[in-house]
Amino acid sequence: MRDFLPADVRRREYVIGVIKEVYERYGFEPLETPAVENIETLMGKYGEEGNQLIFKILKRGEHEKTGQADLALRYDLTVPLARVVAQYQNELPKFFKRYQIQPVWRADRPARGRFREFYQCDVDILGSRSMLVEAEICAAASDVLTKLGFDDFRIKINHRQVLTGILETAGLPLDKYADFLVALDKIDKIGQAGVTREFEDRGVFLTPGGQKAGRFLLDLQLILVEKATDVDAQVRGDFNADDRDELNARMLGGIEEFVAGHEGAHKGLADLRRILELTEGTPAKGKVEIDPTLARGLSYYTGAIMEIEVTDLPGSLGGGGRYDNLVGMFSGQDVPACGFSLGLERIIVVMTEREMFPPQLIISSADVMVSVWNEQSVADSIALAQELRGVGLRVDLYPEADKLGKQFKYAAAQRIPFVALIGDDERSRGEVSLKDMRSGEQRSIKRENLAATLREALSN
Amino acid sequence: MRDFLPADVRRREYVIGVIKEVYERYGFEPLETPAVENIETLMGKYGEEGNQLIFKILKRGEHEKTGQADLALRYDLTVPLARVVAQYQNELPKFFKRYQIQPVWRADRPARGRFREFYQCDVDILGSRSMLVEAEICAAASDVLTKLGFDDFRIKINHRQVLTGILETAGLPLDKYADFLVALDKIDKIGQAGVTREFEDRGVFLTPGGQKAGRFLLDLQLILVEKATDVDAQVRGDFNADDRDELNARMLGGIEEFVAGHEGAHKGLADLRRILELTEGTPAKGKVEIDPTLARGLSYYTGAIMEIEVTDLPGSLGGGGRYDNLVGMFSGQDVPACGFSLGLERIIVVMTEREMFPPQLIISSADVMVSVWNEQSVADSIALAQELRGVGLRVDLYPEADKLGKQFKYAAAQRIPFVALIGDDERSRGEVSLKDMRSGEQRSIKRENLAATLREALSN
Repeated sequence: MRDFLPADVRRREYVIGVIKEVYERYGFEPLETPAVENIETLMGKYGEEGNQLIFKILKRGEHEKTGQADLALRYDLTVPLARVVAQYQNELPKFFKRYQIQPVWRADRPARGRFREFYQCDVDILGSRSMLVEAEICAAASDVLTKLGFDDFRIKINHRQVLTGILETAGLPLDKYADFLVALDKIDKIGQAGVTREFEDRGVFLTPGGQKAGRFLLDLQLILVEKATDVDAQVRGDFNADDRDELNARMLGGIEEFVAGHEGAHKGLADLRRILELTEGTPAKGKVEIDPTLARGLSYYTGAIMEIEVTDLPGSLGGGGRYDNLVGMFSGQDVPACGFSLGLERIIVVMTEREMFPPQLIISSADVMVSVWNEQSVADSIALAQELRGVGLRVDLYPEADKLGKQFKYAAAQRIPFVALIGDDERSRGEVSLKDMRSGEQRSIKRENLAATLREALSN
Repeated sequence: MRDFLPADVRRREYVIGVIKEVYERYGFEPLETPAVENIETLMGKYGEEGNQLIFKILKRGEHEKTGQADLALRYDLTVPLARVVAQYQNELPKFFKRYQIQPVWRADRPARGRFREFYQCDVDILGSRSMLVEAEICAAASDVLTKLGFDDFRIKINHRQVLTGILETAGLPLDKYADFLVALDKIDKIGQAGVTREFEDRGVFLTPGGQKAGRFLLDLQLILVEKATDVDAQVRGDFNADDRDELNARMLGGIEEFVAGHEGAHKGLADLRRILELTEGTPAKGKVEIDPTLARGLSYYTGAIMEIEVTDLPGSLGGGGRYDNLVGMFSGQDVPACGFSLGLERIIVVMTEREMFPPQLIISSADVMVSVWNEQSVADSIALAQELRGVGLRVDLYPEADKLGKQFKYAAAQRIPFVALIGDDERSRGEVSLKDMRSGEQRSIKRENLAATLREALSN
């Protein structure tokens, strides 16, 4: 877990500001939930591994000694959302479109772009089974990334019912499904050879169904790796949106043949086709890539699943999908839902490495520093600072009647562009000395003109 | 702990926005620290009661069963700041002026405006012993409250060295100091009679020194209660800034006489006089009130202490003071420091009760809703929504090809002011139907003019 010093906070707020602005344009409304949830709300929602990564809080009072935990730190923003929707169903609109940008905590091993406290930026739409929802969510996430300056991201997309259909068609025994998907989920990290070994270790390849399903998916992934992720080709322009469309059609066609007659899988394939079609008129156009090996770790997904990738970060910038049964776990009544979560820290890691932050991001603590001539003139300095603050300038006031040289040095170290000074002479003439810290130039200005002069100089 | 639905979040963001803007104008820079600190960082910093109110987090892994806690939830923003200043001393400026707006957690009994998770909005200046620091902090907090629309707040101010001076002069035994201050700290809640009883119960009044100090402070407070807090008189204009100056002089004079010859107390009185003088040219002018009975619960204060009160909320809107030794508890090297914390929830409670929120706060989820004519025209609706989003409008897209009546009803319930519609006729003519949900009027507009028409209608 990390501290964010001022320059870090300003970078984070820039990214959060873009995300908020885009999500508001898509009609999403803000929601905030407490950092702490009842422990039962969280347990059992994230799979076995998730349970172990939840930070648990000791019961207070005399129970503290027993080691009993009754609360836990938020692990993601989706389960709290499902609880909220179940809890406030009469207060919320029929279609609840919310965004939520808050930290979550996982007792995970830290890595590049992975921390124990990190911010998720979620959008979700509840209340509709229409694929328009998936399309809107892909569009909004693409819009965010495009506005931040990303042009090389891909939205990988798959469908839980398609995956199930493949496994059922292949005849994998039901008790091997979880092993199959856990192994498959690692393909980005450990590659084809690694997944093959995992299939062997976990006994998946001991069954003919496991071999059939595994080989089928690994073969499809090989085509993807060769074509879609050929970044050089993309940079050269040899791989374009038409190629992506063709590749998507090839993936969908291949699966369709494999799962022939499986109703759930065909429903899933129709969903995927509709999402491709509906994202055409959005910023997600040309970014969506069917990836039959995408599995996603969390256990609550029921339909389309997605992940956004860029080539220079292992893992993803964000992920999401449809989870039509999660609200029902709290209210007993299912509410269809689909959402997407962007990882703030991962976005910032890549943006920092690629130097994507705009140069005009505030780097100084103030527009101008008012210096203090001597102990007797402190009140004068305060009054001047207040005057300038009153017209909206960011004004630092040196806190002590220090040597002037030290005050200038401080302003320079803080990168404050101007220093204002009222000495005895200036005061008697109703003037202020203004020093431009970049040019070193110092000039006297009528006090009543100071604010306007500063404004003009700062806008250059 | 509470969930914040969209309307709540917008109110909170409005207040936070004002606070940030004002603090930035005073040259404060943003800092963020993790929600979770090592348990040793927090324990022993807040007094005995504070220790018990800290939420403790179970050690992970096999230790989970032992009930051992190694982490804890942030209890305030001051101790994490002191840790940061000790930890990053070489990266931070000589005078570190930071603001921090983040939640803290206390296992306290909830009450009106008091929650287990609540936001503190802190400003602190580190590195200087000048009273200019106290003055700037009072000015910034006053500026925030004035901008939010408060005009009746008072900044009560006292000084730890003055309190110690009074107790030493009276001859209270040292082992009764804590009891004395704990009892005195409750005067707002339990009044003169309650504090007298506490003085008796805690054995303070068994000592002649305790009686002397207690009676002296209670007598001064009686004058304050009669004069300064006479709200009716203030509303009638019978009690004005001059009266407050006179009352402050009377308090300071009374104490000065009592502590005659006590060096620490005289230093404290000089500090208080200087703060009164330096706040004259700031938005805190006329708001600062010397209150000799103000004690503040936290144990880390060393100099001036302050609290902001309004008449219709028991307790305070915020508080703070000087704590010159806290950083030294982490780095071994003292750094002078002074800060102030505004309580977001308390401000919001009062602003809600007094209906102080601006009427133009966003209440709808979108500027316009694009409806969906039928399944075949979904792509058209998406394209229209994207067009309008592209020019910065907040656009909701109805997610399904539902009956139009239902779509209009939904927009009305969401208070969305306009609904745009492309039916088959409109499409053939290159037009869009726009319905004004407030007037009920519906008209056809050339598609290329829609954004401009909406912008104009929304600005009215």
